[in-house]
Amino acid sequence: MTFRATVLTLYPEMFPGTLGLSLAGRALGEGTWSLDTVQIRDFATDRHRTVDDTPAGGGAGMVLKADIIAKAVDHASPQGDPRPRLLMSPRGRPLTQARVRELADGPGAVILCGRFEGVDQRVIDARGLEEVSIGDYILSGGELAAQVLLDAVVRLLPGVMGNMASGEEESFESGMLEHPHYTRPAEFEGMPIPDVLSSGNHKKIAEWRRAQALELTRARRPDLLDEK
Amino acid sequence: MTFRATVLTLYPEMFPGTLGLSLAGRALGEGTWSLDTVQIRDFATDRHRTVDDTPAGGGAGMVLKADIIAKAVDHASPQGDPRPRLLMSPRGRPLTQARVRELADGPGAVILCGRFEGVDQRVIDARGLEEVSIGDYILSGGELAAQVLLDAVVRLLPGVMGNMASGEEESFESGMLEHPHYTRPAEFEGMPIPDVLSSGNHKKIAEWRRAQALELTRARRPDLLDEK
Repeated sequence: MTFRATVLTLYPEMFPGTLGLSLAGRALGEGTWSLDTVQIRDFATDRHRTVDDTPAGGGAGMVLKADIIAKAVDHASPQGDPRPRLLMSPRGRPLTQARVRELADGPGAVILCGRFEGVDQRVIDARGLEEVSIGDYILSGGELAAQVLLDAVVRLLPGVMGNMASGEEESFESGMLEHPHYTRPAEFEGMPIPDVLSSGNHKKIAEWRRAQALELTRARRPDLLDEK
Repeated sequence: MTFRATVLTLYPEMFPGTLGLSLAGRALGEGTWSLDTVQIRDFATDRHRTVDDTPAGGGAGMVLKADIIAKAVDHASPQGDPRPRLLMSPRGRPLTQARVRELADGPGAVILCGRFEGVDQRVIDARGLEEVSIGDYILSGGELAAQVLLDAVVRLLPGVMGNMASGEEESFESGMLEHPHYTRPAEFEGMPIPDVLSSGNHKKIAEWRRAQALELTRARRPDLLDEK
């Protein structure tokens, strides 16, 4: 079954962008997933095709209008569409690999890309938009965030990774950062590969990797260990 | 002064991608920042232009070779280059708006895009690569992560945002998610704009927004409040 992505944006020319290349691009060409864009501005009703207005109560920036966004969402995702409706926004719940996996197991996603100061809260509520954040930083818009989400989802779709399957996501889901990696040459600028890795002792290798992962996680991401 | 970005990747055709459009694209055209790509494969020495090899100690995936990456980094960033050397990787420290601001205040960045299972640890150590993660999910490669980082940085460069300046990042740096936004029409599908926002009482509006921001942050991101 094809994973169907519909992206609502003021910059449809940003898609597929990077998603048209490499793994995601090949999967797009093979029909493993589909990507449509909807130009929000097509739902403006005035001569100037206005989509935003100044914030009620004052303040910087502009706010995307509830009436315009509602029309765009209703066009892209009519009643009965089983796909979740996401709004890429730094106010959202942080995206996790677990949520990525859920999305990949579903029928697709309708993704609204925020721009300017934000989106009128009433259309977020009325259309049940799920605010999703890809991290604690501010982008110029939601388009790159949507591409990040889709790239993470698409690589999990059946057949996409093929024999490039990696233990990385499982490692992440185990709640620890991954252990360090090494490969040939045996010596690089005087530094050897740690002895244990050429010992052939699989139990010792697994123990060493686990200890390294734990140490790295303690140093960089103690928050991941706290959650356990 | 121009912010100089150099990206080391196996997919130079992914750049500038989305960064060639909108805000970041205009700033690129105006010379506010520059973007070069380096094809890692150009530093392979064998007939097959091999850049990766199987992990020492066994396991899934392939590891980018220390000797090849070292040559690519040394080419892109010779001794004395004042720019930080970043490696986009889910093992990295999470990117924050504070780190984005630091980078924007600096001379640029050299960014290595990870692929496959990872990069040989010895070249990470030997070349002082700073591992940066954009979030707790796995991408097909570091290219989109590099674009996210650069988009966040470029919008802070002098002159890029212009009069679109937004209070959003300051709000984020205050340690809370942003309050909800509203704009015309006064009524949308039976829902009015909250009365306080049309009261003209700036003190009350500020108090209401702060209370809303606090409530939202408590519900979605209690971790942000814990850090205070």
